[in-house]
Amino acid sequence: MGSRLSDLGEFGLLHELARRGLATEIGDDTAVLDGGLVVTQDALVEGIHFRLDWTGWRDLGYRAAAVNLSDLAAAGAEPEALIVSVALPAPTEVADVLELYAGLNEPGVPIRGGDTTAGDRVYLSVTAIGHSVRVPGRAGARPGDVLVVTGPLGGSAAGLAVLERGLAGFDELVRMHLRPPFRLDAARDLAPVAHALIDLSDGIAGDAAHVAERSGCAVEIDVERLPLVPRLDEVGPEPFWTMGEDYELLAALAPGDAERLPYPRVGRCLAGSGVTLLRDGTPLEAGGFEHFRPSR
Amino acid sequence: MGSRLSDLGEFGLLHELARRGLATEIGDDTAVLDGGLVVTQDALVEGIHFRLDWTGWRDLGYRAAAVNLSDLAAAGAEPEALIVSVALPAPTEVADVLELYAGLNEPGVPIRGGDTTAGDRVYLSVTAIGHSVRVPGRAGARPGDVLVVTGPLGGSAAGLAVLERGLAGFDELVRMHLRPPFRLDAARDLAPVAHALIDLSDGIAGDAAHVAERSGCAVEIDVERLPLVPRLDEVGPEPFWTMGEDYELLAALAPGDAERLPYPRVGRCLAGSGVTLLRDGTPLEAGGFEHFRPSR
Repeated sequence: MGSRLSDLGEFGLLHELARRGLATEIGDDTAVLDGGLVVTQDALVEGIHFRLDWTGWRDLGYRAAAVNLSDLAAAGAEPEALIVSVALPAPTEVADVLELYAGLNEPGVPIRGGDTTAGDRVYLSVTAIGHSVRVPGRAGARPGDVLVVTGPLGGSAAGLAVLERGLAGFDELVRMHLRPPFRLDAARDLAPVAHALIDLSDGIAGDAAHVAERSGCAVEIDVERLPLVPRLDEVGPEPFWTMGEDYELLAALAPGDAERLPYPRVGRCLAGSGVTLLRDGTPLEAGGFEHFRPSR
Repeated sequence: MGSRLSDLGEFGLLHELARRGLATEIGDDTAVLDGGLVVTQDALVEGIHFRLDWTGWRDLGYRAAAVNLSDLAAAGAEPEALIVSVALPAPTEVADVLELYAGLNEPGVPIRGGDTTAGDRVYLSVTAIGHSVRVPGRAGARPGDVLVVTGPLGGSAAGLAVLERGLAGFDELVRMHLRPPFRLDAARDLAPVAHALIDLSDGIAGDAAHVAERSGCAVEIDVERLPLVPRLDEVGPEPFWTMGEDYELLAALAPGDAERLPYPRVGRCLAGSGVTLLRDGTPLEAGGFEHFRPSR
């Protein structure tokens, strides 16, 4: 165990907290309480998760709501309410704050309660609450399952790169970064039957690894089958589709369900452990994104 | 309406959000959902709500849990789970983070889920979830009601002043600042019968004003009847008992219930509006604490 977070990493910290009985389900995105109550919480910190010169106030609100609703979708939950805490510098324009809340309201889930406070920068914490009849979780994938994803990958990371590089002509990619989807629609197909269901926030490799580890199986992803957002290669040579924050869903399904449902089949579960990315059958190195650690 | 938060103030912002239908129950501390589900969320921001040179990591965790459990107490709710999101600088010592979570766990309510992320300073957002058979709220006080408080006031603000001034010999006051109470015990007496119930986070005048405004009545507080923490006057001449963060409960009760229960009777509700602080029958000026605005 390292002595600083930068050594231990986000996942190491979560493991350590669970091992000591200090927290459960942290990093699971959602907690499932009695009666199918599903609760999720995510924080967006200025300078870490967004920059106000790139993200408008309305988009910021939308994004904060959407990433939490995406977690509810992965739990097969219908949203009921958002609780919003926000820290704001005192000189903030009131009109901007109202735009922030307008964005938070855009997905149509009522904001019920929360907190406002002064802060030296913008800090936004959203809790989303919903009910689920069946929470697939991450632990139920089994050898023989087929993996599907609900939509194209790479748009968010490429959109961020467009902003960082000041490129013109990629408005659609920027929009994908600022306004991620929340696939409540696809979740209604998938949650009743999926053996495992997760939203792609950490990236296909990182999120597949969560499923593999929790389910006790190996996962193979066929990279050439992954649906990609168009024009990624015009932005840069990086593998944007591995970089996360696309907020599509990844599901492990019985082969018959995968056949029946309209989502691209991108991999499989096998006996064993770990994640292998294959391109035309040849392994690539895996990657993802983890907080606290310098990027690899 | 002012153009900046510093003009409009926290309560003005909350009013504006409610008026536009952008949020409800913000500033109510708790949202009450179907089935008596009570959800509360509070954020603690380094440099605004705490300083790490004054507040140890374990105390910080304890405080973050306690202020949310206090909100549940005011709603008559038995706590079921905490959801914790924390942003931490990458160089943070892992041992400190484990102390933080140990403090969060100290009140005995399990931490279920949440999020960890990198940040340039420490941001801590806690959601507490519980169930309540009866939520008194703030709107039910009526003329003729008696106001009671559940414990002594002034300790938190005086303890903060002790830290600010580097005074020695006031450990008990410092402890009251770092480790506020959460009066779940008193709430079990009060929630079944109170016409209004609120925790004293903004200060007696500010919180009584919330009750007066929402209930449509006037409130009088007899200052000489308020129970005070000992030795406040040794710290300084300020009215620490008005400055909030004591996290005792203030209840509006029918006279018979006030008589029956063991809490000091400190005021009354009358026909009219507004809050008057009286000392031996003579009005003082009201005060409280509001974010965004310079202090008065």
